[in-house]
Amino acid sequence: MAAHYFEDFEPGRTFSGSTRISVDAEAIRTFAAAFDPQPFHLDAEAAKETIFAGLAASGWHTSAITMRLLVDSELEVAGGLVGLGIEELKWPRPVRPGDELRVQAEVLEVRESKSRPQQGLVRVRNTTLNQRDEVVQVSVSTLIVPRRPGAAGAGEAKTA
Amino acid sequence: MAAHYFEDFEPGRTFSGSTRISVDAEAIRTFAAAFDPQPFHLDAEAAKETIFAGLAASGWHTSAITMRLLVDSELEVAGGLVGLGIEELKWPRPVRPGDELRVQAEVLEVRESKSRPQQGLVRVRNTTLNQRDEVVQVSVSTLIVPRRPGAAGAGEAKTA
Repeated sequence: MAAHYFEDFEPGRTFSGSTRISVDAEAIRTFAAAFDPQPFHLDAEAAKETIFAGLAASGWHTSAITMRLLVDSELEVAGGLVGLGIEELKWPRPVRPGDELRVQAEVLEVRESKSRPQQGLVRVRNTTLNQRDEVVQVSVSTLIVPRRPGAAGAGEAKTA
Repeated sequence: MAAHYFEDFEPGRTFSGSTRISVDAEAIRTFAAAFDPQPFHLDAEAAKETIFAGLAASGWHTSAITMRLLVDSELEVAGGLVGLGIEELKWPRPVRPGDELRVQAEVLEVRESKSRPQQGLVRVRNTTLNQRDEVVQVSVSTLIVPRRPGAAGAGEAKTA
């Protein structure tokens, strides 16, 4: 599959990932021990008495897995998947041991860059789903995407 | 240090972390191999030709480290640090091998919950800085924070 350039994106276009990532209790605990060592992410028994009512993955673990699913998805961008920033990140439902995650991406907006004519900005909504098609994460991010070499407006001087 | 309840937060209050986390090339590559396997996060040589012009940590690695810094900080919330969601997440500058990160949090807004009188919402801006006091990440998140037991409005029936 060829990498995508700015010219390949248009609002409404969707990209899906065929990859599935399974999350077990061990993976949840390993990530949490390094980055989010709180009882509801570390200990199934202690987690019962918390707001999560059972072991749940750190939201940042879900985000990291989603990034991996995106890197492995059809949303292949020339030069790599590079985000300018995230304007929304929500976890409507926790990821539990045994869940199997996948991702879908939808282009919301494409915008030419005035200051950097060799690239453009693509705003994307990424939805991470579990094996029951329940949404576990929604994020809206803006990607920096190069223009196709030789396309109109591309390859001009890099004026800031 | 005692955990904080909703009543302890007010706009403008700041929390800092005394913890510093050092990031080396090995940590950058290990995280990237699992969650964001792109050349600029994996291979210093290949990274030179990319938009990052050298090895850089995945933004999601920076986010995960920031969560760890927050868990270890003064921002200790009764019941744990639980985010309802993130409304902004930016990486103004990449994290490089050898960087040492720390976090600062500032309360932007506190809001009582009408539907759940036993808790409130606290909007916080978290700023992650490197050893040169340069900002590597800014995030704005909303935390779910329980009211102090016995405080006015707390402990009432959980009506949704």
